[in-house]
Amino acid sequence: ADIVVLPGDGIGPEIVAATLPVLEAVASRFGHAFSFAEHDIGGIAIDRHGVPLPDATLEAARAADAVLLGAVGGPKWSDPKAKVRPEQGLLAIRKALGLFANLRPVRPHAAALDASPIKAELLAGVDIVVVRELTGGIYFGDKTRSDTDATDLCRYSVAEVERVVRRAAALARQRRGHLTSVDKANVLETSRLWRDVATRVMREEFPDVTLEHQLVDSMAMHLLSKPRAYDVIVTENMFGDILTDEASMLAGSLGLLASASLGDGKVGIYEPIHGSAPDIAGKGIANPYATILSAAMLLRHSLGLEAEAAAIEAAVSAALDARVFTADLAPSGQSVGTTQAAQAVI
Amino acid sequence: ADIVVLPGDGIGPEIVAATLPVLEAVASRFGHAFSFAEHDIGGIAIDRHGVPLPDATLEAARAADAVLLGAVGGPKWSDPKAKVRPEQGLLAIRKALGLFANLRPVRPHAAALDASPIKAELLAGVDIVVVRELTGGIYFGDKTRSDTDATDLCRYSVAEVERVVRRAAALARQRRGHLTSVDKANVLETSRLWRDVATRVMREEFPDVTLEHQLVDSMAMHLLSKPRAYDVIVTENMFGDILTDEASMLAGSLGLLASASLGDGKVGIYEPIHGSAPDIAGKGIANPYATILSAAMLLRHSLGLEAEAAAIEAAVSAALDARVFTADLAPSGQSVGTTQAAQAVI
Ligand SMILES: CC(C)[C@H](C(=O)O)[C@@H](O)C(=O)O
Ligand SMILES: CC(C)[C@H](C(=O)O)[C@@H](O)C(=O)O
Repeated sequence: ADIVVLPGDGIGPEIVAATLPVLEAVASRFGHAFSFAEHDIGGIAIDRHGVPLPDATLEAARAADAVLLGAVGGPKWSDPKAKVRPEQGLLAIRKALGLFANLRPVRPHAAALDASPIKAELLAGVDIVVVRELTGGIYFGDKTRSDTDATDLCRYSVAEVERVVRRAAALARQRRGHLTSVDKANVLETSRLWRDVATRVMREEFPDVTLEHQLVDSMAMHLLSKPRAYDVIVTENMFGDILTDEASMLAGSLGLLASASLGDGKVGIYEPIHGSAPDIAGKGIANPYATILSAAMLLRHSLGLEAEAAAIEAAVSAALDARVFTADLAPSGQSVGTTQAAQAVI
Repeated sequence: ADIVVLPGDGIGPEIVAATLPVLEAVASRFGHAFSFAEHDIGGIAIDRHGVPLPDATLEAARAADAVLLGAVGGPKWSDPKAKVRPEQGLLAIRKALGLFANLRPVRPHAAALDASPIKAELLAGVDIVVVRELTGGIYFGDKTRSDTDATDLCRYSVAEVERVVRRAAALARQRRGHLTSVDKANVLETSRLWRDVATRVMREEFPDVTLEHQLVDSMAMHLLSKPRAYDVIVTENMFGDILTDEASMLAGSLGLLASASLGDGKVGIYEPIHGSAPDIAGKGIANPYATILSAAMLLRHSLGLEAEAAAIEAAVSAALDARVFTADLAPSGQSVGTTQAAQAVI
């Protein structure tokens, strides 16, 4: 299988470098051949090519079986006057590949509960997947800026809502059969459309899956007070961005959360949900588990290698059980570096 | 002083009815005379007058010294096809009175920590005020809806950002001198405007107050992982809505969070941040503390009665110390009803 690798900026290159040997180990154990082709995206692409998403990167991604991504962005490219930004590369590749469904599983691991701000007794048995709509909404709407004001337009079409709700509902059907759709239908017109479409799709196509609607403000609360009540959560782009960072706290650290961005085709982008963490870049202390778990999702969703994916997930669990913790997981205890954590998984 | 009282829907009438005797008690103890005039807003106003904000209500509010509000909304008025909604009354009165700054203090009370999903050791000493912009952004932008799609426009002007940042910075100056401004400047144009204006206002007018910028997704995380790091947080309307419901979990229950909505004039609206809780309406079990604490904010901000406000706050603390808990605060223990809780405060 052909895997395009986009290390990006900050800790991106370190965590990706630590993850590739894990994929190599899976390849040799299970008798596969993976080829890795590295390309630029984000800030490094701006530095080298003047644009955050070079054509060569996009073409390689289109032709690949899957894309493994580190992270993009950093202070070097954050000048408010800048015309091009690293994040544009990420948004553009998601859009160009039609990756409308971003799956973010949240399953707290027992050994990491000390690192969570949430009381341990609320976390036992929590097993949530947030499905975030990824190519629509206010992220991609028209923007204006004048001396006196600025605007961003949020737009959702019926078709955009239908396809992401279907994807989330199909996932819920394979799991515990419960879907929570999150919106702000008491205020926003796009949310009322979202709620109408979700209600209709579920009634017509998924009568066996329970549908519950939540307002985004209530959801931000219930996610903490009763996380066990949720199975699959589907929501629009911006709400999904906020709620998944919040939900990462259930898992103890943002450094444990993987993601898969999927469309109608085979190719997907797999990346940790954390950012480029410029403050710790180059120190060799970044947590590689989220990237390694993203590689497991890659095997499952783009390559159809379920046993291989499960093997990686079990190895990460075993490393956590053995308390092989990077600094983010061990605020006051002993910690290991990026490479050592990946070695433990291998 | 003339106080307009808007009980609204659901538990609104109960919690307001429990709060007025507290204000009466303050009046008689400190030798003031408060007059209360009750008006309709929200669903009950739709039922009685066909509109969620009758002219008589708005006129009374404009002429009053302050407005005490319960909550609006409920399933009865939530038909997706409905042309008028209870929430429109709330949005319209905030806008008509020019109440651009919504102050939401978050100060966990020791006796309520059991009810919080957050580990107690993170909560000691937490003392945050979120200042949410309340009359701009995507809540008030143009909306469209067709058979195939829907839009909501988010707009912010320089003047709108300036005034709310100034209000928040002035508050930070009286407190610990630290302001955190929350946006999504790596994606949204309105957020880049927000960040530019906040940076300039703080540099020119509040050089003595420390300014920190946070992306909304990171903020949703840090609010849980290091809540003690924050003093005053200022943000736009929608982000403030989500983050304050999340922050309520630090305090143990949404039923403890008060708010003040302020403009340039004297009149403000004081209301609990929770909603109308239709599921428990009429049962006499709703938590009145958030409304009582909102009445304290009313005394402080609209009537300039600091000692009186502090007396109410101390009485609520004492009631909590004595474990006079409504059901939301005592998931498994003994609880009292709405009236008993208010009596304990009196
Ligand atoms: C970097 C940024 C554009 C991105 C987003 O908001 O989508 C990130 O926060 C994420 O969640 O993947
Ligand atoms: C009822 C609704 C319109 C309102 C809002 O979002 O402003 C409420 O959630 C609040 O936070 O006061």
